[in-house]
Amino acid sequence: MNSDKQRPIRIGICGLGTVGGGTYRLLSENREEIARRLGRELEVCHLASRTPKVQFRDAGIPFSSDIFAVVDDPQVDIVVETIGGFDPARELLRRAVANGKHVVTANKALIALHGNELFELAKQNGVTIAYESAVAGGIPIIKALREGLAANAIQWLAGIINGTGNFILTAMDQKQRAFADVLKEAQALGYAEADPTFDVEGIDAAHKLTILASIAFGIPLQFDSTYTEGISAITIDDVKYARELGYVIKHLGIARRSERGVEMRVHPTLISEKRLLAHVNGVMNAVLVKGNSVGATLYYGAGAGAEATASSVVADIMDIARNSFHEAGEKTNTGLPSLAFNQLNVDLPILPIDEIDTAYYLRIEAEDKVGVMAKITGVLQNFEINIEAVIQKEPESHATGKVPVVILTDTVREKQMNQAIQALEALQEVPGRIARIRVEELDSEESQ
Amino acid sequence: MNSDKQRPIRIGICGLGTVGGGTYRLLSENREEIARRLGRELEVCHLASRTPKVQFRDAGIPFSSDIFAVVDDPQVDIVVETIGGFDPARELLRRAVANGKHVVTANKALIALHGNELFELAKQNGVTIAYESAVAGGIPIIKALREGLAANAIQWLAGIINGTGNFILTAMDQKQRAFADVLKEAQALGYAEADPTFDVEGIDAAHKLTILASIAFGIPLQFDSTYTEGISAITIDDVKYARELGYVIKHLGIARRSERGVEMRVHPTLISEKRLLAHVNGVMNAVLVKGNSVGATLYYGAGAGAEATASSVVADIMDIARNSFHEAGEKTNTGLPSLAFNQLNVDLPILPIDEIDTAYYLRIEAEDKVGVMAKITGVLQNFEINIEAVIQKEPESHATGKVPVVILTDTVREKQMNQAIQALEALQEVPGRIARIRVEELDSEESQ
Repeated sequence: MNSDKQRPIRIGICGLGTVGGGTYRLLSENREEIARRLGRELEVCHLASRTPKVQFRDAGIPFSSDIFAVVDDPQVDIVVETIGGFDPARELLRRAVANGKHVVTANKALIALHGNELFELAKQNGVTIAYESAVAGGIPIIKALREGLAANAIQWLAGIINGTGNFILTAMDQKQRAFADVLKEAQALGYAEADPTFDVEGIDAAHKLTILASIAFGIPLQFDSTYTEGISAITIDDVKYARELGYVIKHLGIARRSERGVEMRVHPTLISEKRLLAHVNGVMNAVLVKGNSVGATLYYGAGAGAEATASSVVADIMDIARNSFHEAGEKTNTGLPSLAFNQLNVDLPILPIDEIDTAYYLRIEAEDKVGVMAKITGVLQNFEINIEAVIQKEPESHATGKVPVVILTDTVREKQMNQAIQALEALQEVPGRIARIRVEELDSEESQ
Repeated sequence: MNSDKQRPIRIGICGLGTVGGGTYRLLSENREEIARRLGRELEVCHLASRTPKVQFRDAGIPFSSDIFAVVDDPQVDIVVETIGGFDPARELLRRAVANGKHVVTANKALIALHGNELFELAKQNGVTIAYESAVAGGIPIIKALREGLAANAIQWLAGIINGTGNFILTAMDQKQRAFADVLKEAQALGYAEADPTFDVEGIDAAHKLTILASIAFGIPLQFDSTYTEGISAITIDDVKYARELGYVIKHLGIARRSERGVEMRVHPTLISEKRLLAHVNGVMNAVLVKGNSVGATLYYGAGAGAEATASSVVADIMDIARNSFHEAGEKTNTGLPSLAFNQLNVDLPILPIDEIDTAYYLRIEAEDKVGVMAKITGVLQNFEINIEAVIQKEPESHATGKVPVVILTDTVREKQMNQAIQALEALQEVPGRIARIRVEELDSEESQ
């Protein structure tokens, strides 16, 4: 087999926004290096966008305003889907796969919600749907979990997988600025959308976590079972108290397998300043993975942006080119199961959030009265919740009649903590709602 | 193709020390999870060790004291080489490959020095030699560079790739202890050998860096061209002054591609405390990689130890099982070139160390006299070396008649710095040798 004589692999790109455009540019810019790696050329043979894109129409490549023209083009070997959203992306993938084409997609929402169906269709049609770019942008975390750590039973993973959220929390921490204020800056910089809900309420992170959990544990995608909590309720006070206790607040996606089942949860989390993850700042992403053999490993990089995301899209294309086109004309899937496991475990229960065990940070605005601490700690004791640390300071002014009490607890089951919080909020001395943030040790060799 | 009916892939392990024993245990411990991933069984069918290993003789698996019996065993599909060293490992690999067997090896020295020859033999025989475990233990860095970042032209990489060295530097920094003192502790803990030369003088790191540079840039393995400098000359004073300037001293392997050629160098390096790499402590490893599309990504984990290294050995076995045994009996190589590139660039020059451009930390024990600073800075000015920062303090005692002068310079070509140092050491006011440590910005999105 002389690789120099092989025909190019032909790529069709549907959607020419940030990621699609970046993919096109990267395939052009690194064309030589890519061919030197692969031993054959990658050739973009069809572009499609529902909106006019003058800059691409001049490229001398067939251009369609109907994205379905790409998946119906007999020339196309691999379809790149970068239009995003559910419709018509879902139908596009179904038709591409039915037409015997491999697909590379950056569409995390589509995979998290409809991946089970789409992967089944791909399997039936002997093609691959690759989605490295759907999680953590340019970080090859899907490959690491699915192949690099394949010898391990994965015990848990914890990731900063939404750059917007991390940008906001980092600025709150480093510049002592309020959430709403930083959000506005993030919007001005283009890091956050006009409607920031997807990012700051954790939905985007939940899509990604759902995917990571599936390939970590070999379970079907179950987005609806992923607990999702955003960062919009975090205050500067929380960030400051956390630092005082030796912690940083990060918006984490956490997946854990225990004897009782699988946890999938996205929420603000206090982590020790000693963890490497605590030093991942700004828009950067990182995923910490604990395997039963390798211990803790961490993967860090840009989680978004045209170039970083395109890096993963093109890596997927190259994997398919290498594994599925051994000789001109031959097409098979890559042999790698879409969700990393040949056999998925469909019986593993997903634990509801009130069944998880974790430690807690509580911030209580209490009445500035003698005996308040005794009452609060008494309630926690009644629920058998141990206290690890307390901050109670003189209020800056006695005028409000309030004093903040900050408590770090030992590990406890969440439903028990919910009952304790209910009891605390029923105290006459605790007039408002209690702020509660989970605390994770992420205990591993990764600290020292 | 019903995967359940496929025969197991049969593994022979040569060498049952730390890594070989760990591999055997891991294949047994995670047997079910591995089979669930692969859709077929991995079966250890032959063990060999030149020293008696009673614990393995009871395993009910054929055991040979002649390691060559494994590579000549027609039952064996994949040979695991974990004996280490050059002889007879080199001959073992040659014979395994000639016998049409795939090989998984953890032998960094063998690959760095004889990889070119062995990979050529493997190619001729249509088999794969996999070596993920040879670099950075359990971190899937070979896979990340070769596949995950395949779309990128790699610009540079910088790694903490020797755990012993990092353990020593971390202890010097955190506990203010002298090199020799910490080395003794490392030896007592089993982190360092009785003869620590390989680790502390950078030879082990140079083996690994040679491999990383080859797969990053697609060049033949060139161990002899890798500049190697150890950490035994680093003093507590250097560590303290570095901190004062906002830096940490790490023993890095650095590979960089510039217009003039490729740099491959292992040496102590000052890096900013703001870099994530500066927070990688103890025996842990990490590699920071800069690609022209993805930007900076970082990979972190345990660089040594039975379990972590076995994790990579078994991942390699699984890759081969997946890619090379599509159907019972069929054997092909994985399709991935051994050094990541289908075509290696054999013409790219490797720059000698005096041709590199870098910044420097200088520690000068100068005479405690008026006008010394002016003389020193005057010499640097003569060589057009800009000064970024200076620390000159009152000496703790004037009895020695010496005062330490610490200087951080701007970037300069190394041969120019060597001339400047020569001129400085020729000054009457500088009676001893000047300590010189390179400083790297590692500028990337990875800081903020």
